[in-house]
This record gives sequence, structure tokens and C-alpha cells, in this order.
Amino acid sequence: MTKTASSIKLFGFFRSSAAFRVRIALNLKGLGYEDAFIHLRRGDQRGGDFLGVNPQGLVPALQTDGQTLIQSLAIIEYLDETHPEPPFLPADTAGRARVRALAGVVACDIHPVNNLRVLRYLSRPLGHDQAAIEAWYNHWIATGFEALERLLAEDRRTGAFCHGDRPGLADIALVPQAVNAERYRLDLSPYPTIARICQACMKLDAFAAAHPNSQPDRDD
Amino acid sequence: MTKTASSIKLFGFFRSSAAFRVRIALNLKGLGYEDAFIHLRRGDQRGGDFLGVNPQGLVPALQTDGQTLIQSLAIIEYLDETHPEPPFLPADTAGRARVRALAGVVACDIHPVNNLRVLRYLSRPLGHDQAAIEAWYNHWIATGFEALERLLAEDRRTGAFCHGDRPGLADIALVPQAVNAERYRLDLSPYPTIARICQACMKLDAFAAAHPNSQPDRDD
Repeated sequence: MTKTASSIKLFGFFRSSAAFRVRIALNLKGLGYEDAFIHLRRGDQRGGDFLGVNPQGLVPALQTDGQTLIQSLAIIEYLDETHPEPPFLPADTAGRARVRALAGVVACDIHPVNNLRVLRYLSRPLGHDQAAIEAWYNHWIATGFEALERLLAEDRRTGAFCHGDRPGLADIALVPQAVNAERYRLDLSPYPTIARICQACMKLDAFAAAHPNSQPDRDD
Repeated sequence: MTKTASSIKLFGFFRSSAAFRVRIALNLKGLGYEDAFIHLRRGDQRGGDFLGVNPQGLVPALQTDGQTLIQSLAIIEYLDETHPEPPFLPADTAGRARVRALAGVVACDIHPVNNLRVLRYLSRPLGHDQAAIEAWYNHWIATGFEALERLLAEDRRTGAFCHGDRPGLADIALVPQAVNAERYRLDLSPYPTIARICQACMKLDAFAAAHPNSQPDRDD
């Protein structure tokens, strides 16, 4: 296929949960994309080539429509604005604020504190061992998930998914974090609503196909 | 004044940069609001009263139109949707993605790693002293600002403000982070574009009036 201005290239890494979000979003919109694998553990993100794509040296980055987009939530909002169906946000302003807030709980308050570069800093220069790093990781997930569970369980706008009966931005943020939590052996049973929603999501092809284990660059 | 459904109550703390963002946004929209002070250092955010408002136990929270909104960026997008003038986002989708991404660099990748609760965890249980915590703080600000400086300086859409010649979502996110950085004695001279934009912002009443030093709950 000839590349056109509307071709989509995703710079990602199978294990990055921010890239996982964008994979889900592209799949839900039915948008095909080309993969560019940036191996975070090998340090591809610090190479000049990739820093030219994203000066932040983080994945995901998305090239489409002749431009480079960064920051997963900004990318997903862009995809939603340029490809409105199916919508990732509800039609009402209050609902939109709720869904953006639920996504923010994950994307601002859980994920960044547990990002690979932060865990590495705990190891060096700070000198912590794997046990301390796992305790850190699980502390921030548990703190975030306790709040998220209440925000979901106590709000009648929660349906089969985080907001109503269609997956949207909040589910796109939540599922990769839950998959990561399972990898760190976090018990999800204190968070039954989160667990139920994630199970519902993983039954959908768009989510399942975006899972780290299904990515061609998987190496563990 | 009688309280109506459209009255606005902001749960904040003078030193919280996420609350600072919302104060700027309210001021730019010309919206008056009532303050509810949640003293983070004294632990008000962990009290049952406030956890009933925001189960996350974080500020800001905003009560308006009969509901409680949380997460600063979601709140600001809500204010922008319900009070469109002056707009916080450009009209074009690419510009919107850029502005949301710039805001995300601060709100997702700098701020949460340096939040009070994270710095406290470094102190206890992890046992680090003030010097190590300051090094941590400055490391993440410098990492983020280096990228942000490039994203601003190398893009001709940057104007007097982060995007064009009107302050918007990216400036609202950036300024509180820069004010915080100055407090930690970070030298902003390696980031001339960031410094220039922040100076332009602080000349505006909406930003100046939102500064921590101008808040009634200031106690340091």
C-alpha cells in the first residue's frame, strides 16, 4: 500500500501501558497502523533518531496527517476528534468531565509514578532493591485503585464499562494499568468493579489485540 | 449572595500546583468562586469530610452545577466546554493535540512524580534526607523542562504563549510548575522559552491572582 498523509505510524513498546492505551484506541476506531518499535529497556528512546521524533524520549508517539503527536491522552483525544465513531467521550459535559477525570486518575496519578524511568531512579542512584521497588509500585497502584473503585462503584453512571455500556477513554486508560498490576501480582479482588470492567474490556477484540502479549516486539 | 446551582466552590490549597491551575482557569474565564481550604500538610485531605468530596483525597475538587468534579485537567476542560470564551484550546485538531500534549508533559510526567505524597514516601518509609529529595525533585523538573523547552522553541506555533498569542491550557499547566521550580531554586536560564512564556503569563491578572503567595490560606 502506498503511504499517504493519512497513514498512521505508532512508535511504541509492547510493555508500555501508555502505548497500550493508544493501541486500544486505534483498534476501537478501526484504524490500521504501522508499528515502530522503541525498545525501552535497551534504551532506544534515548537515541538521537527517536529524540528527533519525540524530544521527551517517551512512547507513544504517533505520526499521522503529516505531523507527530505525543502524550497518549492527547493522541487519543485527537483520534476521537478526527474519527468521531465510536465516541470515546459521552455527549454531556458532566459525563465528559467524569470520564476525563477517571482517565486522569490512572494517567496522572498512578502510571507516571510507576513508569520505568522512575523505577530505575529508585534503583540507581537511590539504591533500592527489587522488594522496595515492588512495594513502591504496589503502593501507588493500590492508592489509585482504592479511589478509582469508589469512584466507579458509587456512581450510577458506571455501567458495563467505566461510563455506561460502551468502552471509552476511561476504560482505555484503566485496562493497561490493571494488566500491569496483575503482572506485579497485585490482588484485584479488593477492586471488584475495576476487575469486572477490565474483564468486560478484554472480551473485546480491540482490547485483546492491544495486549502486550499480543505484540510482535514482545521479548519476555 | 444566594447560592445557586451555578455557584462554584473550589477545594484547594495555596501550595498545590494542580489547584493553582484551576485558579488560573477560573480567573481567565472571569468566574468567581468560593474557596474551601484543604490544608495538605496538616492532613485535611485524609479526613472523612473531604474524602466524601473526593475519594482520591487530592485537591483540587470543584463543585458546580450540582456536581463535584475532580482532576485538574478534566475540570479545566469542563470549564472550557461550559464557558467557551476565552478558549483554552485552539480551533484546529492538530493545535488542540499539541496544547493537550504540552499540558500532559507537565501534568502527567513532571508534577505527579514530585507531588507532596510522593516526596513524603521518599522520606518515609524510604528514609531519604532532604538533599536526596531535592535532587529527585530537580531531576524530574529538569528532565521535563528540557523536553518542553525543545517542544516550545522548535515549533513555530509557539508565540507569546505556549501556543500562539493567547494563554491556554498549556500555559495554565506550565506556570504553576515553573513557580514550584523557582521555589526549589531551579535555575530557569537553560529554558529561555519557558521562562519568557511564564513571565508573559505572570503579567496577566488571572495568573498573578492565582499565585500561591496571593492565597488567603498561605501559611509560609
